[in-house]
Amino acid sequence: MPGHFTFFSEEIEHGFARFNESEAKHMVQVLRFSAGDEVWCTDGKGHRYRAELVSASKKEVKAQIRETFTVEPPTFTLIVGVLKSTDRMEWLLEKSVELGLQKLVWTACDNSERAKVFLDKLMKTCVAAMKQSHGSWLPVLEHMSFKEALEKYGEGAFMAHCSGGLAYSAKDLRVDSVVFIGPEGDFSESEIRMAKENGLKELELGSRILRTETAAIAACAAANLRV
Amino acid sequence: MPGHFTFFSEEIEHGFARFNESEAKHMVQVLRFSAGDEVWCTDGKGHRYRAELVSASKKEVKAQIRETFTVEPPTFTLIVGVLKSTDRMEWLLEKSVELGLQKLVWTACDNSERAKVFLDKLMKTCVAAMKQSHGSWLPVLEHMSFKEALEKYGEGAFMAHCSGGLAYSAKDLRVDSVVFIGPEGDFSESEIRMAKENGLKELELGSRILRTETAAIAACAAANLRV
Repeated sequence: MPGHFTFFSEEIEHGFARFNESEAKHMVQVLRFSAGDEVWCTDGKGHRYRAELVSASKKEVKAQIRETFTVEPPTFTLIVGVLKSTDRMEWLLEKSVELGLQKLVWTACDNSERAKVFLDKLMKTCVAAMKQSHGSWLPVLEHMSFKEALEKYGEGAFMAHCSGGLAYSAKDLRVDSVVFIGPEGDFSESEIRMAKENGLKELELGSRILRTETAAIAACAAANLRV
Repeated sequence: MPGHFTFFSEEIEHGFARFNESEAKHMVQVLRFSAGDEVWCTDGKGHRYRAELVSASKKEVKAQIRETFTVEPPTFTLIVGVLKSTDRMEWLLEKSVELGLQKLVWTACDNSERAKVFLDKLMKTCVAAMKQSHGSWLPVLEHMSFKEALEKYGEGAFMAHCSGGLAYSAKDLRVDSVVFIGPEGDFSESEIRMAKENGLKELELGSRILRTETAAIAACAAANLRV
């Protein structure tokens, strides 16, 4: 294991990586790193670096890149009804980033009880999950209406909902599948009808009623681990 | 969907179900149920009942069974290193009960930072998850040392750990598999050696480093969704 964390830098150029205050604090204050120490870091865009710290303060850390690797991107996409609880949205993201997530689109559904989504805050959860799991890709986060999501991502996509007798199972998922998951209270009848008219494939995820985040994580695991 | 919840009763006999104070509160105070209303309930041991309330107060509710169904038990078993955070243990259980869990054995591992596990409290999480997901089985919860768990559950079991190049993947899991998952900081070298000596099958769950609860939920999803 290359150290306990993979650090994140948004400023990598000319062979050097600069780390912002939050990363610097973590490195210098928590982990007691100093100049000369080796770290692994990523730009969250598919690059992974072995680097050596050249200056280290609690405000900023700079490291010289010694070696660069490129990592294939995850390809799985989730379209998820906005949840009431921020906690559950964060958990969903944490787990999905660990398992492999290219994009998550939060959609305002008929049964979504919340209108606002704080993508900046959710992106912080993604950064933490990427670092923790030694990933090299941050997912793209979006927020749009159900109708827009259907137009933009509906083609060939799956939709998991709670009415029984659905035609597809987790075995049909591929690592680059797109899966729509409803909010608490599921998709509305009119959303399910719209999805059917758009040719979405109805996906069943076992015999019990799963919470939104459980269904999303289960689909993400099945797709990435190709069961 | 048969109502919003499946209620839980530990006292079902002679054609009647009695519900304790916490269930009664939920039914009467939160959901405003009264005599004559129909509910679905379970004993958590594979029975599912359609019943009609015959008396309903905030202290106790009694219902007459109208119809009885039996439900096949889940068969998947997790052996998980005790975690530092109770929250993460609860999440792991909530998700696994939804997906299908027969038994969860918390094991004190070399890297477990906590000694005590409050099985009663964790069982409450299981009851809530069973009700929410309309399940009919509560899992068995146990707590023992890693060595005991290895002796009792090691035969034919899988062990997921973070050293690379492992021989088995999620595709090899079956719905009745037994999977060992390490605590934060993974299994120790000596635990991995013991497991190998006992013939455990080393399981890889993708290319990133998963948190304990992510690995457990992913294994549970993969095992249960193999139709």
